Amino acid sequence: MFTFGRLRDKHRCFPAYLVMKPEELSRASGPGVTDFQPGDQVLPVFTGECGDCSHCKSEESNMCDLLRINTDRGVMLTDGKSRFSIKGKPVYHFVGTSTFSEYTVCHVGSVAKINPAAPLDKVCILSCGVSTGLGAALNVAKPKKGHSVAVFGLGAVGLAAAEGARLSGASRIIGVDLNPSRFNEAKRFGVTEFVNPKDHKKPVQEVIAEMTGGGVDRSIECTGNVQAMISAFECVHDGWGVAVLVGVPNKDDVFKTHPMNLLNERTLKGTFFGNYKPRTDLPGVVEKYMNKELEVEKFITHSVPFTEINKAFDYMLRGEGLRCIIRMGD
Amino acid sequence: MFTFGRLRDKHRCFPAYLVMKPEELSRASGPGVTDFQPGDQVLPVFTGECGDCSHCKSEESNMCDLLRINTDRGVMLTDGKSRFSIKGKPVYHFVGTSTFSEYTVCHVGSVAKINPAAPLDKVCILSCGVSTGLGAALNVAKPKKGHSVAVFGLGAVGLAAAEGARLSGASRIIGVDLNPSRFNEAKRFGVTEFVNPKDHKKPVQEVIAEMTGGGVDRSIECTGNVQAMISAFECVHDGWGVAVLVGVPNKDDVFKTHPMNLLNERTLKGTFFGNYKPRTDLPGVVEKYMNKELEVEKFITHSVPFTEINKAFDYMLRGEGLRCIIRMGD
Repeated sequence: MFTFGRLRDKHRCFPAYLVMKPEELSRASGPGVTDFQPGDQVLPVFTGECGDCSHCKSEESNMCDLLRINTDRGVMLTDGKSRFSIKGKPVYHFVGTSTFSEYTVCHVGSVAKINPAAPLDKVCILSCGVSTGLGAALNVAKPKKGHSVAVFGLGAVGLAAAEGARLSGASRIIGVDLNPSRFNEAKRFGVTEFVNPKDHKKPVQEVIAEMTGGGVDRSIECTGNVQAMISAFECVHDGWGVAVLVGVPNKDDVFKTHPMNLLNERTLKGTFFGNYKPRTDLPGVVEKYMNKELEVEKFITHSVPFTEINKAFDYMLRGEGLRCIIRMGD
Repeated sequence: MFTFGRLRDKHRCFPAYLVMKPEELSRASGPGVTDFQPGDQVLPVFTGECGDCSHCKSEESNMCDLLRINTDRGVMLTDGKSRFSIKGKPVYHFVGTSTFSEYTVCHVGSVAKINPAAPLDKVCILSCGVSTGLGAALNVAKPKKGHSVAVFGLGAVGLAAAEGARLSGASRIIGVDLNPSRFNEAKRFGVTEFVNPKDHKKPVQEVIAEMTGGGVDRSIECTGNVQAMISAFECVHDGWGVAVLVGVPNKDDVFKTHPMNLLNERTLKGTFFGNYKPRTDLPGVVEKYMNKELEVEKFITHSVPFTEINKAFDYMLRGEGLRCIIRMGD
């Protein structure tokens, strides 16, 4: 079972994850695997948690030294070899999960054990962008009840950030996007006001500061555009504003601001996978869905059988919908 | 009673503060002043706390809308007039305290009531740079026990930041300064290692990353040089590092970094007066001295009578010593 989304972010939010079924896991688990039993229900995650490195041992980091996302590795860590082949030729692993496949082989640190009652065709989308946006709000921006929050970019990650802001009790959630067709959909995710930078002659950070008496309490940047990052930082209130960067920039981008914007007691921070430690924290995100705190269904706009996987790519490339589930069994 | 220091930072750390004696306060307090009694011992502070604005009501900010440092105002807020004159000509107020004088008139929000037993010739230095550096460590960087902390700039503010890191239980405190004569003095403030960027061909952030297995846990920038700010940010560890900017930049400076440095879970924040609310928090800083948690004497390297005030300016301009007390009574 796969899930697709808009491929906005090549390095951070790879759009497809296999949810291994229990009978698949029984094959996937192998010698030396002690944390899982055949039959456990799990989510594979694009970035892992070895449990032993300084990042895994830190309460603050989820950027595991061993299993942090690596799009180039293509092999298992133990022996540098692939576990897949077609007609004797190796097929390489991808982002630690290799989920365009009915069966896969992962490092044990790339798999999170979840509630056995969780419906896999829903919670599979929690392995990437939705948790990334949600965690950016709940774990990093941490808006307080009554706060104002600006969300830059209203794709699935931004909408998940808005959802996180709503769950935190934010009273104003200002969605910023260049595409006005996103605005209606965004209301279902808690967005209360919309700003299209194209509608204004002045920089969007000034527009937002005027709307909010000096700036928002929190902002969350989910586009990866470096100008949007600068705007997201400069639109937070002095004294207490916190800006959180989620979207991944281009290689040559430079973030620039006048240092007084920082000295006036603004905070700028980045996050990766919403600061969730994949194995430790993802089961709790699934529980939020099981407890009906978190609505997952509204992110799932399409579903196709594996034989029609190219349709999912097309939806993604055209920016249609939010997440598309790939049904492996059909 | 005045205190002088190196004038490294024209806008933020004005070097002189009058500590009003009780008999002076009795003259300074006037109609409408209800928070003080004649005889109270107080510290005037260059940035005030009105108690009513959104900043004063926020738990996080000390940047009072009404009484935030303003080097240009020169008059009382109520009527836009000065309270000082010489031969009928007005003499203007300065940074809300006007402390080059035996008597002064301040807004009540610019005066903090402190322990009546505190020795004014010591605690007067807590009105500015020492609290700025101390608070940058204790209130903003918040190093944990065993953490490594880099301090950029080993003037009084930087040494106070080192002292704050030491009080927090940091195990390594790396002092960074271009002037090696500062290194010996810095040891008395908890600095354990020294880096002079001039001794290295590679950027100082790379030197620090190599010394610390990837970066320090916290850094505190106390020079105001924008290159040092960038180094202070880039020398913190990914995953959990926090960089705090204290030194004030030039008007045209631009802070530049690759946004991935943020996305890899580093935090960048600025602080003003160590995030202390002057009236609410400064009495507690004085108590730290009274309880012998905080040593203030080691910051006081000179003392001159008011008649020799120009000597204090000379010490400051030559960068000699840390703080010079001006004795008003002599």
